[in-house]
Amino acid sequence: MKRITINQIYKKCNLINKIINIYGWIKNRRHSKSGISFIDIYDGSCSNIIQGIVKKNIINYNEVLKLTIGCSVNIIGVLILSHGKNQKYEIKINTIKVLGWIDSPNEYPISSKNNTLEFLRSIPHLRPRTNLIGSITRIRNNIFYSIHNFLQKKNYFWIPTPIITSLNSEGAGSMFHVSTLNKNQDNKDNNIHFIKKNFFGKKTFLTVSGQLTAEAYACAMTKVYTFGPTFRAENSNTTRHLSEFWMLEIEEAFSTLTDIIKLSNNIIKYIIKNILKNCNLELEFLYNKIDKNIFLRLENFLNSKITIIEYNDAIKILLKSKTYFKNSINFGIDLCSEHEKYLVNNYFNAPIFVINYPKNLKAFYMRLNNDHNTVAAMDFLVPNIGEIIGGSEREERKNFLKKRIVDLGLNKKDYLWYIDLRRYGSVPHSGFGLGFERLVSFITGIKNVKDVAPFPRTVNNVLC
Amino acid sequence: MKRITINQIYKKCNLINKIINIYGWIKNRRHSKSGISFIDIYDGSCSNIIQGIVKKNIINYNEVLKLTIGCSVNIIGVLILSHGKNQKYEIKINTIKVLGWIDSPNEYPISSKNNTLEFLRSIPHLRPRTNLIGSITRIRNNIFYSIHNFLQKKNYFWIPTPIITSLNSEGAGSMFHVSTLNKNQDNKDNNIHFIKKNFFGKKTFLTVSGQLTAEAYACAMTKVYTFGPTFRAENSNTTRHLSEFWMLEIEEAFSTLTDIIKLSNNIIKYIIKNILKNCNLELEFLYNKIDKNIFLRLENFLNSKITIIEYNDAIKILLKSKTYFKNSINFGIDLCSEHEKYLVNNYFNAPIFVINYPKNLKAFYMRLNNDHNTVAAMDFLVPNIGEIIGGSEREERKNFLKKRIVDLGLNKKDYLWYIDLRRYGSVPHSGFGLGFERLVSFITGIKNVKDVAPFPRTVNNVLC
Repeated sequence: MKRITINQIYKKCNLINKIINIYGWIKNRRHSKSGISFIDIYDGSCSNIIQGIVKKNIINYNEVLKLTIGCSVNIIGVLILSHGKNQKYEIKINTIKVLGWIDSPNEYPISSKNNTLEFLRSIPHLRPRTNLIGSITRIRNNIFYSIHNFLQKKNYFWIPTPIITSLNSEGAGSMFHVSTLNKNQDNKDNNIHFIKKNFFGKKTFLTVSGQLTAEAYACAMTKVYTFGPTFRAENSNTTRHLSEFWMLEIEEAFSTLTDIIKLSNNIIKYIIKNILKNCNLELEFLYNKIDKNIFLRLENFLNSKITIIEYNDAIKILLKSKTYFKNSINFGIDLCSEHEKYLVNNYFNAPIFVINYPKNLKAFYMRLNNDHNTVAAMDFLVPNIGEIIGGSEREERKNFLKKRIVDLGLNKKDYLWYIDLRRYGSVPHSGFGLGFERLVSFITGIKNVKDVAPFPRTVNNVLC
Repeated sequence: MKRITINQIYKKCNLINKIINIYGWIKNRRHSKSGISFIDIYDGSCSNIIQGIVKKNIINYNEVLKLTIGCSVNIIGVLILSHGKNQKYEIKINTIKVLGWIDSPNEYPISSKNNTLEFLRSIPHLRPRTNLIGSITRIRNNIFYSIHNFLQKKNYFWIPTPIITSLNSEGAGSMFHVSTLNKNQDNKDNNIHFIKKNFFGKKTFLTVSGQLTAEAYACAMTKVYTFGPTFRAENSNTTRHLSEFWMLEIEEAFSTLTDIIKLSNNIIKYIIKNILKNCNLELEFLYNKIDKNIFLRLENFLNSKITIIEYNDAIKILLKSKTYFKNSINFGIDLCSEHEKYLVNNYFNAPIFVINYPKNLKAFYMRLNNDHNTVAAMDFLVPNIGEIIGGSEREERKNFLKKRIVDLGLNKKDYLWYIDLRRYGSVPHSGFGLGFERLVSFITGIKNVKDVAPFPRTVNNVLC
């Protein structure tokens, strides 16, 4: 008999009074004195549980009485409409088979309802069994798929840009080394020996961005994107940083700062519309447990217009503000989290694009503006989170690009291939990067990105 | 004026006699003596080029005469139906703007029509400009999106399983080390010091598979998949191996070997149907240039039935064969590429599933059969490529799993979390892994996976 998921029960309307075959885990159970047991089963396919009713005349009722939260079962029974106020359906159980018991039920961490997020982080392999992490997983999946749907409908091509790279600086922080050397074998080796013996014949690192290689494809296919893991070896233990995180990066030939600002705004609105449409139960759960502001925040975002502000004007606003900031403000500083939050949450009370940053604050590949001091860059700042997207026009003029590489002390030899893109049929082009976990955090209202990544990697923290 | 892509010209029917705005690169140009120039433009959005016609009375006709292959241009003109036999449309050009010239056109490698695949591998940043790599890129994108569509329609949840792992063996070959230590700083350090100083507080590696962590989610959400880069530090310079490659891994609770065999067969058929439907021009290009067998191979696959053969029976067939094999055959050997090819191409002349391998050939997590000698594993072998999918039932019985971990000399402490999944509501479950580049190779007929990965990483080879 074909097994069906709880999601299918709720999606199909034609199963009433039919015998169905369900697999899942016990979420709750209670036994009445009259010899009826009620067991709530979840299978993760949706937010709903299904209640099963077992009568004491079933052959293994003694087992039913021993069931605890988390046991896995297979049940076969008749689906009926429920009179209970908490569920639409229930199952009159004919047979129940226990597939897996819980070793020492008192120690099973998921049976406690009062687990903190911090505690759940210590058991990343078990926490998907909670309603909270289950909801986040379904929403994250929906955001992920919406991103691909949006871009595929608009004919962007997905490019699997490489993770292992020999570029040791792309203007985005510290990198992890990749090697095959066993530390025991090479205590006495010097650096040159190390390089020669290494697997790839040169020093290699985990990429901080797929942008540069994506540009090579944009300069041939026009509209491309890459979406995969990226890495930062930074010792920053905040709620917004992971050592390993997914990043969406779009590169588009013949497009301008204005184009990518529109695109950024459209893609996030598209995602949020989809989440509101497809994940209503999950959002309601988060509304009840985590964030009373969740629907308002998402609706506000959908209703927001594009607000663009020059970096210089942002600094002026901050200088005029009477708020106390820990980090002092002057023209030329990078905006800190507190500054971003003031602008978005207090001053504009809306998401904003800050554009035209001083060139010294930004990476070598961003296009120099005519003032020769600023670059055609944009950061998209959203409420609570701050920067969620960063992008720019890319410097397509060979000589300007070369000068920036030299001025910043980068090794020109490493970038010859990148300069080639400007030697052969160079085109104006732009792109941006979107931090995936930050977007999930913004949408779910879960403040710490460690709770929206299934197995977060941070300093001193690699579990599973 | 809004720019449109060449793909849009061919998809929309209502642009005839309208003025359109196109950006792209010169694929070809010729100048008639009567003062008319014909320029073919591509933009990568599809296999089609669009021909533009420029008359000498245009203001910058002297520039037009200097155009070479690869130059980037913006043209505005009227779209008309073409009388030429090679194209459906052409553009009467009103204005043409040269955006980027080619430095030393004689040296521009893409202008030669006789570049070998080997040569193109040396310029991974420029080769997407060729028709061949452009076609592969569009097909690869379509395969990728088809995989997600197939799984999302069936309600599998995507899980971003981690790349950085502390597990140093999952039964799948050598691993790359990840560290933040600068080799210059630690010449005199011993191994313990190394570990303590490391970023994550323990030794870390690049993952060979997301399976184990995906299982944790299958044991809560029922149907999940992970699809991202995986790594092998193996010194094998073949047409089928990359150090970095994408792998689709599906894990499903309550599913059996039979279930995942059906699922494997269905997903590949779904993908091929989509490719035949959406990438016809690309397949025709490959048919003409690379592989006269391409349509036949794909149709044959669609028409194939599921053929399942026991490992023991496969060995018997090989022993009876009169073909000479380099690697000798007996019960207990792992099937080599030559054996797989004989079975698929010669004996069955069809894709086959080989099942129930000796346990010693397979990883610790595969479920022991009742004979206590074999495991409930399957390899899906396809023509020319050999193994494209490998999967199994996972050992859900705590004591069997523990014994295998101990027997194989693995460090049980590392796998406590994995054993937890069997201590708390364990369920029968199965899963498989699909090598993405091998699938692209199988579908396109491009023999070397280095040509279907945009920036392939292999021993001594990290370009860009």
